[in-house]
Amino acid sequence: MTSRYPSALLENAVNELSTLPGIGQRTALRLALHFLRRDLNYTEAFTSALLALRKEVNYCRQCHNICDSELCNICADPSRDQATICVVENIKEVMAIENTGQYHGVYHVLGGILSPIDGIGPGDLEIDSLTSRVAAGGIKEVILALSTTMEGDTTNFFISRKLAPYDVPLSLIARGVSVGDEIEYADEVTLARSIQNRTRFEYER
Amino acid sequence: MTSRYPSALLENAVNELSTLPGIGQRTALRLALHFLRRDLNYTEAFTSALLALRKEVNYCRQCHNICDSELCNICADPSRDQATICVVENIKEVMAIENTGQYHGVYHVLGGILSPIDGIGPGDLEIDSLTSRVAAGGIKEVILALSTTMEGDTTNFFISRKLAPYDVPLSLIARGVSVGDEIEYADEVTLARSIQNRTRFEYER
Repeated sequence: MTSRYPSALLENAVNELSTLPGIGQRTALRLALHFLRRDLNYTEAFTSALLALRKEVNYCRQCHNICDSELCNICADPSRDQATICVVENIKEVMAIENTGQYHGVYHVLGGILSPIDGIGPGDLEIDSLTSRVAAGGIKEVILALSTTMEGDTTNFFISRKLAPYDVPLSLIARGVSVGDEIEYADEVTLARSIQNRTRFEYER
Repeated sequence: MTSRYPSALLENAVNELSTLPGIGQRTALRLALHFLRRDLNYTEAFTSALLALRKEVNYCRQCHNICDSELCNICADPSRDQATICVVENIKEVMAIENTGQYHGVYHVLGGILSPIDGIGPGDLEIDSLTSRVAAGGIKEVILALSTTMEGDTTNFFISRKLAPYDVPLSLIARGVSVGDEIEYADEVTLARSIQNRTRFEYER
């Protein structure tokens, strides 16, 4: 046999499956055989869902979150505080913050963070549209909720310079020891930050 | 928001992706966003490969291995010993044994092993066609290379009773593979050793 695989169709499917992030050749083979074990309807529903997602998905014209119409559910919701914008990297962060149930403002999805190593510059992100939203007025606060990495810090810095002319209150999500973590295992930078940014603890009387 | 997801198209794609074995909701979301980041050609090539596999794949009419024609490459190869049949559960085991380079006979792919718990009985497996191959004559040896589990042992036992009338030498791969392990996860050296050191398997009469 010239190929590891007894069928070119199988080999092709395994190769495609192994392009998925975190999926190696062995797992890809297991997935390919999974499709063979299920009936044709299953593969058809699976592939249709992926094609429909890729072809028909929309991005909110205001916040660039994924949505099915022109404006996402959050931007279109009159009960949300439209004057508070939380800036995030991606839709996963929108979902994570929504799951907390603690945020009632709206979002702005950048589509990534500045990363010279990965060749991602300001032109690749929705920074100009954020500036336009702020420039249009009526915004009371912009919350920066990017990753607490060097790339996140760089992006925070870049956005702060872009928004400086409009003088809208800008905030960073708190950085500190994770809830449930033990102090002895927290890294020094996080621990230092959590001491600097300590909050008042009220007496129980 | 009624749904966790900001888009029904996204939700549908995540639901389909999370039907894959070993893929949870969180990984499924990561995979769905992966498709959104790549261009449309990528999703088209991916889905076409899966559909083609499911619709067009053939099974060898002799050994039931996956193949692209009527007879698989191994059964069609005149340099292989067509009188020695190695009985395996699935195509993954064919590939694992082929990778050892230690086996020069042909295969018989059962399509699983007997498992009353999973509702898999003899009628669901290619056992009758194995009996027919042996009954047709000219077979010098049948090697049983099933998982060294209770289900594998049960299947070995069942096959030995089916083949008993033909009195063809029957062997088991050596239990160099630790009991309780599955064939597909054995390392190549152990697997090669277990084929070389196969032991005679006595008929149950």
